[in-house]
Amino acid sequence: MSKLSIVIALYPGVTHLDFTGPHQVLSRAPNAQVSVASMGGRDIEAEGLTFTGLADLKGVMRCDVLLVPGGFGCTDAMLDEDFMGEIRRLGGQAKYLTSVCTGSLVLAAAGLLSGRRAACHWAWRDLLTPFGAIVSEARVERDGDIITGGGVTAGLDFAFTLLAELAGDDYAEGVQLGLEYAPAPPFQSGRPELARPEVLARVRALMAQSLEGRTQAAVGAAARLQAV
Amino acid sequence: MSKLSIVIALYPGVTHLDFTGPHQVLSRAPNAQVSVASMGGRDIEAEGLTFTGLADLKGVMRCDVLLVPGGFGCTDAMLDEDFMGEIRRLGGQAKYLTSVCTGSLVLAAAGLLSGRRAACHWAWRDLLTPFGAIVSEARVERDGDIITGGGVTAGLDFAFTLLAELAGDDYAEGVQLGLEYAPAPPFQSGRPELARPEVLARVRALMAQSLEGRTQAAVGAAARLQAV
Repeated sequence: MSKLSIVIALYPGVTHLDFTGPHQVLSRAPNAQVSVASMGGRDIEAEGLTFTGLADLKGVMRCDVLLVPGGFGCTDAMLDEDFMGEIRRLGGQAKYLTSVCTGSLVLAAAGLLSGRRAACHWAWRDLLTPFGAIVSEARVERDGDIITGGGVTAGLDFAFTLLAELAGDDYAEGVQLGLEYAPAPPFQSGRPELARPEVLARVRALMAQSLEGRTQAAVGAAARLQAV
Repeated sequence: MSKLSIVIALYPGVTHLDFTGPHQVLSRAPNAQVSVASMGGRDIEAEGLTFTGLADLKGVMRCDVLLVPGGFGCTDAMLDEDFMGEIRRLGGQAKYLTSVCTGSLVLAAAGLLSGRRAACHWAWRDLLTPFGAIVSEARVERDGDIITGGGVTAGLDFAFTLLAELAGDDYAEGVQLGLEYAPAPPFQSGRPELARPEVLARVRALMAQSLEGRTQAAVGAAARLQAV
C-alpha cells in the first residue's frame, strides 16, 4: 500500500517551530511520508534557521495532508498569487487540510475555510473573520477534515492529534512516549487568560505594532478572494 | 553591552526538535545572540530536514551558553575526536553548559559532567553513569550552571527555564505567551510511568534494538575519557 503523503508548504518568514514540531512527530508515522516544499524548492530562512533541500511546491502533484505553518511572513504569503495558487490547488484535493498558528490565515486566504471553524494564534485569530472562517479559541480545532492548531507550540498538540487520526491512538501514544511529551512549562502564561496582566499588556503592545499591516493584508487578500 | 552568545552545536543525525524548540525560544532573548554551528559549517541532515548556513564550530572563539541537542547520531558524535575536542574547548569556558535529550551524553563524554546531575531522554539516561555523571529523572535539571533537559520535547521547558535565567521571569513569561505555550497533549503517555503498559512495552522493544550499540559507544567513550 502506498504511503499517505503529508506536504508541509513553506514560505519566507515562516516561524520554524510551527512546522519542525509537527515534522518531528509526523515523520514517525509508519504509514506516511512527509515532504517539505517551497516555491521553486528555494531555501527558506525562518527566524535564524535556514532550511535547504526542499521540494518544489509546483512539482507536488497531490497530497493527502496539506500542512501550512504560520509566521510573520504569512501576510506576504497570502498576497503572493503564485504561492496561493499552489495552496489552493493542493488544498482543494487534500483529504486533510491542516495548519498551525497563522497558517490558518493562509488557508483562509486561499478560500479553503469559508464557513469552517479554525484555530489560529491568539493574537491574530480575528483576522480569520474577513475570509468567512469561524474563529475557534481551541488549541486544536477539528471541523470535519480540517484540523488546525493555535499558536506555534500548539503545533505539537495538533501533530499528535493528527498522528492518532492517521495511525491510531496506540501508535500516537508510543510516539508521544518516544518524544517524551509530558510538558511541564515553568510558567503559566501561555494564553492571554493565563498570563499576568502586565505581561499580557507588554506582549499586546508588541503585537500591536504589526496589527495594522496584518489587518490590511488580510482585508486585501479577502477582497481578492471575492474577486476570484 | 555586548550580547550573550548562545551556541548550538550540531552533528549529523541530531533530532531536530531537540534544538529547533530551544532555538525558537532563545532567539527571542533580548540580550542574547543564538548561533548554530557544525564541524566545518557543513549542512546537517536531521531526520528529514536539512539545515544550511551554519557557522563553523572551530571558528567559534567562545560562548556564554553551549547547547548540545541529542539524537540517534550522538553515539557517533561522542566517538568523533575532532567534534568532541570542540565541545570540550567551548564547554570548558562557557558560563552555562546545557543540553537537551541525549545531548547530555555528549557533554558527559567530553568529561564535563563528572560528579554532576544531568537529565537525559528516559530510555538512555543510564548511559550517563559510565561517565561519572549523576542521573536525574527531572524534565529540567539544574546543577549550578549546568542546565539539562530530558527527551526531545523537554527542550521547550528547558528553554523557557534558561530564558528566565538569562532575561528574567517577566520576559520569559512574555515569550511563553507569544509562542502560546500552554500545552494540552492529547494523550498522557509522555513518560514511562504514565504510558499504558502495552505502549511502554512496544516502545521499549523498539529502543532495545539500539541499546547494545549505544551502550558500547558510551563505554568506549568513557574509556577514552579516562585515557585523556
